[in-house]
Amino acid sequence: MARQTLAEQLAASLAEQIGNGTYRIGERLPSLRECMRLFGHSKNTVINAYESLASQGLVEPRHGQGFFVKQGAPRSNEPEEPLPYTRAMDTIWLMRQQFVREPGHSPLGEGFPPVEWLMDMRLDKFTRQIMRTGVTTLFRYGNRLGNASLRQHLVQKLASYAITASPRQIVTTHGANHALDLIIRRFIAPGDSVLVEDPGYYPLFGKLQLQGARMLSVPRLADGPDIEVLEQHLRLHKPKLFFIQSVGHNPTGSDISPSKAHRLVQLAEEHNFLLVDDDAMADFKPAAAIKVSALDQLQRSLYVGSFSKSVSAALRVGFIAGSKEVIDELGDLKMLLHTSTSELCERTVDVILTEGHFLRHVIRLQERLKAATSAGLQMLDGIGAEVFARPEQSLYLWARFAHVDDARELTRQLLPKGFMIAPGHIFAPEQARVNPWTRLNVAYLNDALLKAVLGREAE
Amino acid sequence: MARQTLAEQLAASLAEQIGNGTYRIGERLPSLRECMRLFGHSKNTVINAYESLASQGLVEPRHGQGFFVKQGAPRSNEPEEPLPYTRAMDTIWLMRQQFVREPGHSPLGEGFPPVEWLMDMRLDKFTRQIMRTGVTTLFRYGNRLGNASLRQHLVQKLASYAITASPRQIVTTHGANHALDLIIRRFIAPGDSVLVEDPGYYPLFGKLQLQGARMLSVPRLADGPDIEVLEQHLRLHKPKLFFIQSVGHNPTGSDISPSKAHRLVQLAEEHNFLLVDDDAMADFKPAAAIKVSALDQLQRSLYVGSFSKSVSAALRVGFIAGSKEVIDELGDLKMLLHTSTSELCERTVDVILTEGHFLRHVIRLQERLKAATSAGLQMLDGIGAEVFARPEQSLYLWARFAHVDDARELTRQLLPKGFMIAPGHIFAPEQARVNPWTRLNVAYLNDALLKAVLGREAE
Repeated sequence: MARQTLAEQLAASLAEQIGNGTYRIGERLPSLRECMRLFGHSKNTVINAYESLASQGLVEPRHGQGFFVKQGAPRSNEPEEPLPYTRAMDTIWLMRQQFVREPGHSPLGEGFPPVEWLMDMRLDKFTRQIMRTGVTTLFRYGNRLGNASLRQHLVQKLASYAITASPRQIVTTHGANHALDLIIRRFIAPGDSVLVEDPGYYPLFGKLQLQGARMLSVPRLADGPDIEVLEQHLRLHKPKLFFIQSVGHNPTGSDISPSKAHRLVQLAEEHNFLLVDDDAMADFKPAAAIKVSALDQLQRSLYVGSFSKSVSAALRVGFIAGSKEVIDELGDLKMLLHTSTSELCERTVDVILTEGHFLRHVIRLQERLKAATSAGLQMLDGIGAEVFARPEQSLYLWARFAHVDDARELTRQLLPKGFMIAPGHIFAPEQARVNPWTRLNVAYLNDALLKAVLGREAE
Repeated sequence: MARQTLAEQLAASLAEQIGNGTYRIGERLPSLRECMRLFGHSKNTVINAYESLASQGLVEPRHGQGFFVKQGAPRSNEPEEPLPYTRAMDTIWLMRQQFVREPGHSPLGEGFPPVEWLMDMRLDKFTRQIMRTGVTTLFRYGNRLGNASLRQHLVQKLASYAITASPRQIVTTHGANHALDLIIRRFIAPGDSVLVEDPGYYPLFGKLQLQGARMLSVPRLADGPDIEVLEQHLRLHKPKLFFIQSVGHNPTGSDISPSKAHRLVQLAEEHNFLLVDDDAMADFKPAAAIKVSALDQLQRSLYVGSFSKSVSAALRVGFIAGSKEVIDELGDLKMLLHTSTSELCERTVDVILTEGHFLRHVIRLQERLKAATSAGLQMLDGIGAEVFARPEQSLYLWARFAHVDDARELTRQLLPKGFMIAPGHIFAPEQARVNPWTRLNVAYLNDALLKAVLGREAE
């Protein structure tokens, strides 16, 4: 291989990343300072690399703002397949959308915070600390319940939510979806009735369908599940589980009220079902936010947590907390199906929780989210949209627009204008129904063009 | 927190790792040089730390050999639970055994190479290279098929086995067990008939039982599956899948013959079933070893690979190769169930394959294995054991001893003497049967005490 200068290497690496969509069209490259810090290059090297990219027509400098990936930058030769029409509107469709970013499109429908919000946490900074906590175990399968030190930290995290648990009441997972999968496979046989929220977390519905579960819809109101419908289902069927997102509910962004949380726990005891609370947005909410598991102390509830949205989705670290007996069984099931989770990733999270100024990161994340939520609500109010819930801070807002009866129609209208929204019917357990609502990611909502477009559509 | 010297920090960290079993009793701590290299400490710091551990009675110096964890070093306060007797001998039992190491016991029954064989590959060395290939994607969910650059490397790896595949014919997984799980969930409904090898890979049986599959046993002979029994099953039932390990078969260590591989592929075409070849030991074998997927070019076969045993089990990186259509579906299923695999771990493997002198590492691994296999066979011959297959290099040997009719009995006799073996009945699809065979890890076989004990038992 011919020897390249550092600047040439850096330019080639960035060109490849632009080509394969790592950097989207319109996205800003890291600043000179970030780039120097991240790659350890000199300022001159970085400037030379960026100027070479500009001369190749891949990026353009914008005064005082940095370098941006140019419209028309060549794309890689491995495009995502066109989707078969038959499943174009089902769970897999929206999940695929989360991975495929249309160049230049605003990912309004995405369920993920902007990467810029996460990048102040340096994932590469902790190698030495990770090695220090044990070299040999970085080669072996981990403990079936997960890294012991991380579980000790999770005990503290749960304690900050007023949930008391021992390390043996926690099993780590490859993220919240792996956690839901393990719970479904432990508790649900084909034909079993399961309670879900409507609207609710659509990847959950796909997993339940795969397992052959019968979903019983409980309408989600702005203060939590509709208790009347829930009681009806409980009388008629004998559901074993109720999957909820009590706080920062996906897609509505709503939070459960203390009285509803209390009522839910009462009903779980009376009717002998298990509450599964998927709290993947916990780090985006004040620690004081109500949790059903804090009310019942994991007696009839399982608490599902994740670091995907507050640290990195590339680590795949989540966890389940519950009674010792249930966690023991879930740990066996995890071992049987997937052997173990990643010691490397779990120790990375463990070190971040210990030495990574995690609390400071979370505070900053919440401040950003609060500002974006407030601006988003203001924008939606400005164009006369109806907003389902008005949380102080939530990654999602659930809104409908005057004269829009079917959000699929709106999705189709907005796509050529550069906006990808998540139409409401996807979040319904029965996806065929027409639905006027859409889920909007507040991080991308405060956008003048979007406001103009939506305002016009609404007329 | 009171400030500690570097030596105190290192001693405390090592003491904790001895306490929680990371370093087993009798195990050697890293050498002074390794420790200096790994942690970046000065020689004095390391010596002070080791002497402090020795003065606490945790380790003892052995002349010219280094520091060893002492018998009687205190154990942590989070011991693995005693196992409920009811499942003491089932799949979960042996899987748990892989994670719990009895202090001072020789892990003869373990399915894993000694960590010392892997540690020449420095997992912490590649942080900068990993960051260089894209910072922002270290925070996002990955591509549903897995990291594109790693898949490109896997294309080359498969080509070295004479298997032609495009990157879209590969989906990455959290290791080989996750791969098997995805395949089972895509293809097998409760009640479906599935062909398995007997003896065979026991964690596979557990997964099939969980899915409600009906297992049809095909005896494994020293040159591959028993074709006569296979043909009988094919006539009587209509199995959709046959799970095999053609090379380095677990537990017997045997390799399929070219003619049997050819016959298998013929039968798969005639009877329209899919061959799933779990080749987790590929890196321990010459690249020229026969693979069924090389014969049929992934037409009616799925190839399962893993880096758990040749790089690190703590990364959880494996993959499936197959036809574009099947891989597309498995990619969707992986996304639906577990969202994505870990970008961090996959890029670590990718960088190791590019810059990590992987080939050199594999050659050294195979040299070690060859020597251990030869010594192991010699030892077994010396005590008059019967050996099922005599491969040139295999992590496992499958052996029986004169007068041993039930290896469970032998397991019980050896355990108090400090040897943990894997009794043969565990590797049978129907676990209740009495079985005289045992699986022995060659890395721990060349042991004078073991030879004496086994020789005596055999009398």
